Amino acid sequence: MIMITSVQNAKIKLVRELLGAKKHREKARSIVIEGVRLAEESLAANLPVHFCLYSERISDRGRGVVDQIQALSFEAEEISEGLLDRISDTKTSQGILLVTPIPEIGLKTKIDSVVVLDKIRDPGNMGTILRTAAAMDLGAVLLTPGTADPFSPKVMRAAMGAHFRIPIRTMTVEDIHSFCKQRNGLELSILLTDTACSQASWETDLAKPVCILVGSEADGVSPEMREIVDECISIPMSSKMESFNAAVSASILMYEMTRQRKTK
Amino acid sequence: MIMITSVQNAKIKLVRELLGAKKHREKARSIVIEGVRLAEESLAANLPVHFCLYSERISDRGRGVVDQIQALSFEAEEISEGLLDRISDTKTSQGILLVTPIPEIGLKTKIDSVVVLDKIRDPGNMGTILRTAAAMDLGAVLLTPGTADPFSPKVMRAAMGAHFRIPIRTMTVEDIHSFCKQRNGLELSILLTDTACSQASWETDLAKPVCILVGSEADGVSPEMREIVDECISIPMSSKMESFNAAVSASILMYEMTRQRKTK
Repeated sequence: MIMITSVQNAKIKLVRELLGAKKHREKARSIVIEGVRLAEESLAANLPVHFCLYSERISDRGRGVVDQIQALSFEAEEISEGLLDRISDTKTSQGILLVTPIPEIGLKTKIDSVVVLDKIRDPGNMGTILRTAAAMDLGAVLLTPGTADPFSPKVMRAAMGAHFRIPIRTMTVEDIHSFCKQRNGLELSILLTDTACSQASWETDLAKPVCILVGSEADGVSPEMREIVDECISIPMSSKMESFNAAVSASILMYEMTRQRKTK
Repeated sequence: MIMITSVQNAKIKLVRELLGAKKHREKARSIVIEGVRLAEESLAANLPVHFCLYSERISDRGRGVVDQIQALSFEAEEISEGLLDRISDTKTSQGILLVTPIPEIGLKTKIDSVVVLDKIRDPGNMGTILRTAAAMDLGAVLLTPGTADPFSPKVMRAAMGAHFRIPIRTMTVEDIHSFCKQRNGLELSILLTDTACSQASWETDLAKPVCILVGSEADGVSPEMREIVDECISIPMSSKMESFNAAVSASILMYEMTRQRKTK
């Protein structure tokens, strides 16, 4: 087989598009998975592979991933190192990337914990929250319209494989409300975190079914979302600072929920 | 006074240097503080101002900061909007920046909690940890050699004013050890967080004086640092993920410490 060396190649063009604007990912219903570790995770999660591109730089561990992809009868093609670096979203590629369908993890019938990201814009924050949510085994991460794209390369990198473990869905505020109140047979209490609230996180029952809201970095939780809030709680802090980072605040609440559930 | 419009101006040159490599900040013992909020915080912390540069774009709130700086007899000079945008570390400047000495917050005599950042490289993670440490009122943040510069523009932005609230010091592992064991009259227990450890964070006494270690994103806590560890603890998580983000893990432990101390 002749090695791909041209940026005009159709696969290369597709990869560049999928690493760019959200509309391309939505149109092709596909994403790019870069690096050995994420590729391993996607295979472990039985995500199919449209195709794999690798270069000479690939490690032995990466070579194992390519072998596995070929054994599954998916396509893997070698491209020149310079070309892979050029299309990669990272400075230096690890010598492997996959194009796969957008992962869509199924929702469990009964869900007793979700996180809602309400117009979070920072891909690092979003990826970090997805990572904690998967680690803390939450039932789903729900996004309101206007939130950053969870399948952008930066979010994928920060989430360290969470995309293959936890359901992610975009929903209107109305649908989030019915999800929390009707879908489950479980009623989730919708929690707003605000330093102005007097009820400390550790004084709040988080062992019951809960929905944790996380607002945008600049403006907090949106007015529409505030209308469906059941409880307002705070993470106590010294008066020196105004607030926590959004990913920190969300992660602390997921930790507190886990602590209460495991020590109950 | 004639408005500064040239990149060749000595002040402009200094600002560009201070927003660049660490060596320039170290040589001049100075930093750049960008934006209205951080400028307000630095004044509230009584940090002196070498000089302030502002442009026409400045908000009323920013204008108040300039007035305050002039009332304190520090220098404030208008520069063209295009020039300020050009030298700014952000895409669009808020129309104000200060050059100040590197803030050096004094250490209290008795300190019963510190965080050690051991070769953390990501400025976003570092800034986020500083922000949580100030919010949770820790005694100090100690950095080992090889850790990212806490006064780089990205760290400053992510820390949201923590630099003016909490002492930050770089120390060798040896000095960190004596700091924890001898300095205080208090003996701090040095805690390593590792998913391999069986003792859960909430089963560990964190109300006692503690030193929380945070290792690098890629390699964790360094071997030299591991030699002085007293206790190994873990933040329990599902088997789905390998680890938490470094800033999340550090923040959760600071939260757990605060929770135990306030509910004791």
